[in-house]
Amino acid sequence: MSGALMTAEMNEQPAVLGRLAERFDDHAARVRAIVPDRLAGVAFLARGSSDNAAVYGRYLCELAGGRPAGLVAPSLLTLYHARVDYEGYLVVALSQSGATPEIVTVCERLRAAGARTVAVVNDAGSPLAHAVEAVVPIEAGEERAVPATKTVTGQLLAVAAVASALGPVPFDGAALAALPGEVHALLDDPAEPRALAEWLAGAERLFVVARGLLYPAALEAALKVKETARIFAEGMSVADFRHGPIAAVDEHVPVLALAHAGPSQNDVRDLVAALVERRVPVRALMLPPTLPEAVAPIPAVVRAQQLALALTLARGLDPDAPAGISKVTKTH
Amino acid sequence: MSGALMTAEMNEQPAVLGRLAERFDDHAARVRAIVPDRLAGVAFLARGSSDNAAVYGRYLCELAGGRPAGLVAPSLLTLYHARVDYEGYLVVALSQSGATPEIVTVCERLRAAGARTVAVVNDAGSPLAHAVEAVVPIEAGEERAVPATKTVTGQLLAVAAVASALGPVPFDGAALAALPGEVHALLDDPAEPRALAEWLAGAERLFVVARGLLYPAALEAALKVKETARIFAEGMSVADFRHGPIAAVDEHVPVLALAHAGPSQNDVRDLVAALVERRVPVRALMLPPTLPEAVAPIPAVVRAQQLALALTLARGLDPDAPAGISKVTKTH
Repeated sequence: MSGALMTAEMNEQPAVLGRLAERFDDHAARVRAIVPDRLAGVAFLARGSSDNAAVYGRYLCELAGGRPAGLVAPSLLTLYHARVDYEGYLVVALSQSGATPEIVTVCERLRAAGARTVAVVNDAGSPLAHAVEAVVPIEAGEERAVPATKTVTGQLLAVAAVASALGPVPFDGAALAALPGEVHALLDDPAEPRALAEWLAGAERLFVVARGLLYPAALEAALKVKETARIFAEGMSVADFRHGPIAAVDEHVPVLALAHAGPSQNDVRDLVAALVERRVPVRALMLPPTLPEAVAPIPAVVRAQQLALALTLARGLDPDAPAGISKVTKTH
Repeated sequence: MSGALMTAEMNEQPAVLGRLAERFDDHAARVRAIVPDRLAGVAFLARGSSDNAAVYGRYLCELAGGRPAGLVAPSLLTLYHARVDYEGYLVVALSQSGATPEIVTVCERLRAAGARTVAVVNDAGSPLAHAVEAVVPIEAGEERAVPATKTVTGQLLAVAAVASALGPVPFDGAALAALPGEVHALLDDPAEPRALAEWLAGAERLFVVARGLLYPAALEAALKVKETARIFAEGMSVADFRHGPIAAVDEHVPVLALAHAGPSQNDVRDLVAALVERRVPVRALMLPPTLPEAVAPIPAVVRAQQLALALTLARGLDPDAPAGISKVTKTH
């Protein structure tokens, strides 16, 4: 019930990120060597929690590479046998295990269809790593806790290395060097996420909202809270939230906004003000202003892990056990 | 409290779809004339409920055009001033009003960046229609009810016309001709969605799941139920559901599966069986087998509208009034 496993793996993140930051330029160089001469586009291939790192990667790759980037829809290949020409595309496959059969199969088909392929995997010896032309290993070590933590932040920094293979990314070497220390400082000071957990302990529903590059962090925060604390959380972009759900929220559905001092700040501030006016319970999770917005999803995900952990414990659940599994064991 | 407005607009759908089906080939020809010679990719630009039609369009365009398709991330342009080269891309902008400033602005920038641009709009005189090279008008007439119905199914069929400009779509003229009649028959027989509404009347949460081409219909169904009946519904692909949330559902969170006799059926059937075994309340919403799976999202969305309408009335809410607005009026 202590969440000891999850905590231990969260605490490994400064070291994992430190290794990735050190090898960042090497990883980028390996990817750069296989990028198509005339890049037509970039497509990410992922499932489940790797999907959120894919959304982050897609934003960064489009910014860095100057060509459109998006996500692969695997069912087009597996269910409808689509014949799609991937000539000129860089495909980035994400899988923590590197062993998800669907991802491996689809990646092989996209390569056969003309794509250059990169795998971001934790295990460089996995089937996915063998299926591609370049591998960016996360090297986070085995993940034993059910909620993925160190592999997720590792994936985020790894896809940033992929993006930097395509062109200039919107952060510099100093930010990269500072990142592990910033994450360490956050892990050392869980007061803010604990206060948020106290605020949310009785909630059954939750919106996590963010803007721009922080949007994938909102998706990951909602996923983590949903998986561990079993609150029905939904991640959403501030723009989409204003376009619909804002009309339906009331004093019963709290909203958590990921806030950074970068380009996203005005839209987030305006939304928070609008929610306060509607008497919707809303709090902002402040991210370190010392890191640029382009890297801020990593500390944001760390904060979300801390929140999910505290919230899960506050609700009398076990962060280290698969949600639902213990229940099934009990009732059968 | 009767939902008369929403009902009236839902009942206009056979006529709206009939007009679009008649002009389907004309619309496709107009788009075909501006498709880039060497297509690099297709990108959809949308917000809110138009996003779901964009996901459907993205699937169909990739199947028909044989080049990758995806969704634009507007914030890259509006927030981060990304310089992205859209040479070789077809951009399809969706906006019911055609007047959303963000969509118009981003569409103009993508065109300036080299994209060929199409607008799917209800009003052919709107700013978005003037910003593009080809217009596919939905011609659904003014939408007065707050929940979008006829404009959504109209968008779905309109993006199918865009897809057919790129190559063969996975349905034929007979399916297109049968569609308005099938939708009419569904509207005439609301027994199944009413039974589902009765089943869900007490629920506070809901998963709507589907596979492949029906996935965007699951997203739209969840959105409609959330907006009107104020149930915290989430749309998800069967594959992603199996990859995570299945571990967390229990007897308190019902799952509604969109079921069709096409390629998606095995995955849906397997998931339903797994949920039954876990004692999760699950029902399948059966779609007409007479229409191919590629067109089935349209009847699926009609069924979802009927469900949302019945559920909203069963919960004592007004389908024609904006969710939350009446509440705000009361408390201020």
